[in-house]
Amino acid sequence: MIENIKKYIRNVPDFPKAGINFKDITTALKDKNVFREIIDDMYEKIKNRNIDKIAAIESRGFLFGAPLAYKLGCGLVLIRKQGKLPTKTFSQSYDLEYGSATIEIHQDAIRENENVLVIDDLLATGGTAEAACKLVKKINANVDSIMFLIELDELQGKKRLENFGEVISLIHY
Amino acid sequence: MIENIKKYIRNVPDFPKAGINFKDITTALKDKNVFREIIDDMYEKIKNRNIDKIAAIESRGFLFGAPLAYKLGCGLVLIRKQGKLPTKTFSQSYDLEYGSATIEIHQDAIRENENVLVIDDLLATGGTAEAACKLVKKINANVDSIMFLIELDELQGKKRLENFGEVISLIHY
Repeated sequence: MIENIKKYIRNVPDFPKAGINFKDITTALKDKNVFREIIDDMYEKIKNRNIDKIAAIESRGFLFGAPLAYKLGCGLVLIRKQGKLPTKTFSQSYDLEYGSATIEIHQDAIRENENVLVIDDLLATGGTAEAACKLVKKINANVDSIMFLIELDELQGKKRLENFGEVISLIHY
Repeated sequence: MIENIKKYIRNVPDFPKAGINFKDITTALKDKNVFREIIDDMYEKIKNRNIDKIAAIESRGFLFGAPLAYKLGCGLVLIRKQGKLPTKTFSQSYDLEYGSATIEIHQDAIRENENVLVIDDLLATGGTAEAACKLVKKINANVDSIMFLIELDELQGKKRLENFGEVISLIHY
């Protein structure tokens, strides 16, 4: 079943810039059967983990975090780019290839000691997801696991995340 | 039931700038019962409309469009800010208070004559949603309806959208 999903992910060479082979997930999302299977497969992997909150990373993480939170019956928390969240936040910066970026979480988004699943569409070097895990830790909550639709194994992002929680990916390249 | 949801939406004065009373939905999303009720209420309003695709507007539209597409069993289509979608797009610009913005849709996201629900979190003046409807029309698909969690009635955004399809909002201010 899962290997089937790969067939619906489109490779776009040289996007957003030369040399990058972009994994376009829109071709999977627009197919009702494939989208359903992705969410059902993700659900099966986490349904017994006692997750209190799903923390979804803006913006493609929202596409998987929201239906999973609905199906699991847990709260949905947003990790957003700097300046988007309107009340008191914790911030975390991380390095990009050139320069850096900052993401934020509302300080009241999660209660202390709650069990959190962090989710995004794709694990590459793991910089964004690591920053997201640090934000959850700043609230003194527990990162139970970090989930992705796609993991690019050769970039070894998993190594940066394993200290926070279990890394769960549906598809590997 | 629905009036209850309002109690979970936080008013943040002067965000993102002075004079704007921001409706913060994160306090509703993080509560598992409120988030579930929102999606269930939205689902009840569209379940008999024969929707083929849900077109969700980046990025808060993703939070509602994704679980609804899952529950309804239809495809999910992304309407994103300029430069984010990797293959051939249609573009539509619209006016902001100062300047303008552009959103895009993949040309192959929807088939001709498919029935589309456009979704976002909040209807204010309707500029973004109108541009989203125009993108759906460029594909020669049908805008069945345009759905929001929140509608700010006094800004009369509904008037700009009614020619495209039925406007459905869960909460009014």
